[in-house]
Amino acid sequence: MTLSKSSRWSEHRIRRRVQFHETDAAGIVHFSCFFRYMEEAEHALWREAGLSIARGDAGVGFPRVAAGFDFHRALRFEDEFDIAIRIAAIEEKTIRYTCLLTRDDERIAT
Amino acid sequence: MTLSKSSRWSEHRIRRRVQFHETDAAGIVHFSCFFRYMEEAEHALWREAGLSIARGDAGVGFPRVAAGFDFHRALRFEDEFDIAIRIAAIEEKTIRYTCLLTRDDERIAT
Amino acid sequence: MTLSKSSRWSEHRIRRRVQFHETDAAGIVHFSCFFRYMEEAEHALWREAGLSIARGDAGVGFPRVAAGFDFHRALRFEDEFDIAIRIAAIEEKTIRYTCLLTRDDERIAT
Amino acid sequence: MTLSKSSRWSEHRIRRRVQFHETDAAGIVHFSCFFRYMEEAEHALWREAGLSIARGDAGVGFPRVAAGFDFHRALRFEDEFDIAIRIAAIEEKTIRYTCLLTRDDERIAT
Repeated sequence: MTLSKSSRWSEHRIRRRVQFHETDAAGIVHFSCFFRYMEEAEHALWREAGLSIARGDAGVGFPRVAAGFDFHRALRFEDEFDIAIRIAAIEEKTIRYTCLLTRDDERIAT
Repeated sequence: MTLSKSSRWSEHRIRRRVQFHETDAAGIVHFSCFFRYMEEAEHALWREAGLSIARGDAGVGFPRVAAGFDFHRALRFEDEFDIAIRIAAIEEKTIRYTCLLTRDDERIAT
Repeated sequence: MTLSKSSRWSEHRIRRRVQFHETDAAGIVHFSCFFRYMEEAEHALWREAGLSIARGDAGVGFPRVAAGFDFHRALRFEDEFDIAIRIAAIEEKTIRYTCLLTRDDERIAT
Repeated sequence: MTLSKSSRWSEHRIRRRVQFHETDAAGIVHFSCFFRYMEEAEHALWREAGLSIARGDAGVGFPRVAAGFDFHRALRFEDEFDIAIRIAAIEEKTIRYTCLLTRDDERIAT
């Protein structure tokens, strides 16, 4: 698989609404859900490129090596927000992404 | 696999504490988590019997046919509660369970 | 709040794609997620009607009394499917829904 | 609230078993669940100290500023593992934790 970093598939953005089951008793989205949001955008990026990263049809797996977020603001039930994911680097065995969550013009998490 | 309904493995009880990520913005356990609690007790029952129902090593699957709960009271963060699961019927191709969630002496869900 | 059962808001349908984090080690959507899908459609129905059922702004809560599904077929990662929810009955203190999940023309769960 | 870093409450370890609903179609624990495991250990640490960090009774909140994991090995259904959490630093407005997941002697995530 050859991927050009400059391809139009190197980034992708999806719009999403907070679902009730993603909130917690503090009234905000549970922080673990941000990682799920990121993955939803990642898989959408690959679908957009005609690929399905997680089927593993070819015996290729994509185990996660590391994942982290800085949280700037909270998301609440029914908030609409955007998840922008970008391929930051493709190395021999790893793909590195950056991910930005925004609600309107506010940075939610990076 | 032969199972005797009267065996000591026909029911099982686990104690569990509500985790924060299981609560929702209403301040209570999200109702979908009750189904996960039920399954945790179900798998504990099978482990207790020396079996692992979900590995599917033997090419045997246990697809769920139906699942339902009546909710009587809410559970909140850090509540301790019990999940009692009982094999209600074993038929040719299906196993039917009943499940009871209690907190102290209160019925939470059935 | 007065609701006419014959109103155009008495049912709603959303299209959804299976996310990876909703699958389990059996390769299919975990059955507890169906209840989350149902709720997503329910809340979309209320949003469509200009209401937000879960904010509880007015001190009104909608605790669930019971929930159940019959499962007919499995959903897999990236499957697209529809969730149709319909208000089956509005009684003094309760609203009863029916919910149908379909993938193309196949019934997945009811 | 005054906390001594050298107190016996500055670290805590819990043992946990992988539940089926925490696995994904790759047959392993979904990476987002590691963050939930970490939080379970964190709340257990506070409970052990006689505190409940998430109730917010006192109008005090503990919003997360950042969270990250390096993943070394996968966890599978029914694996037993340990989550050790340690308070790494207490600053004016933030608490920093380190968290280590192990299965027997293997490092799973840090």
